[in-house]
Amino acid sequence: MGFSVIMLGAGNVGTHLARALHSSGTDIRQVYSRSEESASILARELHTAWTVRTSEILPDADVYFLTVKDDVLHPFLKSAPLENKFLVHCSGSLSLQDLMAYTSECGVLYPLQTFSRSRNVDFSEVPVFLEYSSERAGSVLKQLAAGLTGRVYLADSVQRVKLHISAVFACNFVNHLYSVAASLLKDIPLDFEVLVPLIRETMQKAGVMDPFLAQTGPAVRNDKEIIQKHMQLLASTPDLQELYRMLTEHIHNQHKRPIHGIF
Amino acid sequence: MGFSVIMLGAGNVGTHLARALHSSGTDIRQVYSRSEESASILARELHTAWTVRTSEILPDADVYFLTVKDDVLHPFLKSAPLENKFLVHCSGSLSLQDLMAYTSECGVLYPLQTFSRSRNVDFSEVPVFLEYSSERAGSVLKQLAAGLTGRVYLADSVQRVKLHISAVFACNFVNHLYSVAASLLKDIPLDFEVLVPLIRETMQKAGVMDPFLAQTGPAVRNDKEIIQKHMQLLASTPDLQELYRMLTEHIHNQHKRPIHGIF
Repeated sequence: MGFSVIMLGAGNVGTHLARALHSSGTDIRQVYSRSEESASILARELHTAWTVRTSEILPDADVYFLTVKDDVLHPFLKSAPLENKFLVHCSGSLSLQDLMAYTSECGVLYPLQTFSRSRNVDFSEVPVFLEYSSERAGSVLKQLAAGLTGRVYLADSVQRVKLHISAVFACNFVNHLYSVAASLLKDIPLDFEVLVPLIRETMQKAGVMDPFLAQTGPAVRNDKEIIQKHMQLLASTPDLQELYRMLTEHIHNQHKRPIHGIF
Repeated sequence: MGFSVIMLGAGNVGTHLARALHSSGTDIRQVYSRSEESASILARELHTAWTVRTSEILPDADVYFLTVKDDVLHPFLKSAPLENKFLVHCSGSLSLQDLMAYTSECGVLYPLQTFSRSRNVDFSEVPVFLEYSSERAGSVLKQLAAGLTGRVYLADSVQRVKLHISAVFACNFVNHLYSVAASLLKDIPLDFEVLVPLIRETMQKAGVMDPFLAQTGPAVRNDKEIIQKHMQLLASTPDLQELYRMLTEHIHNQHKRPIHGIF
């Protein structure tokens, strides 16, 4: 690409983004993390320099990618010598405005994906959402993003936080429900693996038909006896019972009339 | 297989089960449904007879598969001439006992999958859970199930209802969260398709690592500012705000200490 970048943060997002940038030919000049382990592991993988000291962050890179945790962004920016650098954060819920106090040239590159250190992600399929402070900033970001993925969108800060909330529902909350299901299965006992064909089909269906229309199960059928039976069986775990009750009510309320369909 | 069966019910489960039994060489003698349309469509597809009258249900089949809705099973069985037939229901939450008042020879064949009429399902990957009243009943059910899938398990009525509850969490409730996410995206506006790589990765991760350990997002990080921001943005939809609050609290409570990870 011809741009030199510095990665500020070496967590899940930072690691996967750095790898993908590196693969696309971007020059990763340095990795900063307050964790020596995280910084050094990522830097070694990319054959580049690393530091745990903000004072040692190199001053002459084209782009500074911020992937530190949302709630430490401001303390970090206040402590680091990054005035008037081209800053880019990768957060769904922070605004572009959050960077404006520190520099005039800035942007956001938000990859809509869940990253775990131990899993490879094909970045070329990850939708990436851009926002920027100027045409020049936009030009740099678009070139960097085009090297990562074919799915580049523009989104302002309000759109992005809505997108983040939708992702919290479709990913974080969904994963929590998987976790609840796994804990219930342990009790039988059965391995979570037995649910995989079902959760795969649920997901695949959502990809091709409106999930609202795809809703099945006791709640949408308003099958009171079954719901009652499930509530009784969950009495020994009141927090799960409450979750079941609330989600059932919510489904029931959203679907005004009972819809046919069997689980 | 050499067994003749009659399908009592032609909804989503009945249709997919009948197709799979037919494919495995089982003789579907007749389809009963109170809906003429459902009965005739399925029967024509399987080149067999159909009826909407309980009095016309043929008396001499080896097995009678019940896929009527859970809450009409008893009214249906009281009205149909099925005394002492080999009855098999396919419900997660009804017990074997539910059939005992009508016959001595009975069983349960519960396929753990979500079925929509418009989607083909590869039955050979569907886990099927059996319960039966006698060794003879078990022998027939096992032979029928073996023709459907390689994934045959035994589960008693209590295990099966737990399994059903876990499936409600992992499928019905998950689908509802997809539906919530889709409604939030409409507001941006963005198509649900943009979330597909994220939900696919969330699902694939759950297949290979403990979903509890795979949890990411603001709730498990206890990122109060982001949670606050999301709650504010959801203020115009109080029901979604309440769902967000409750799921966030539940995740937070289950994970005693904050776990690192970025969305």
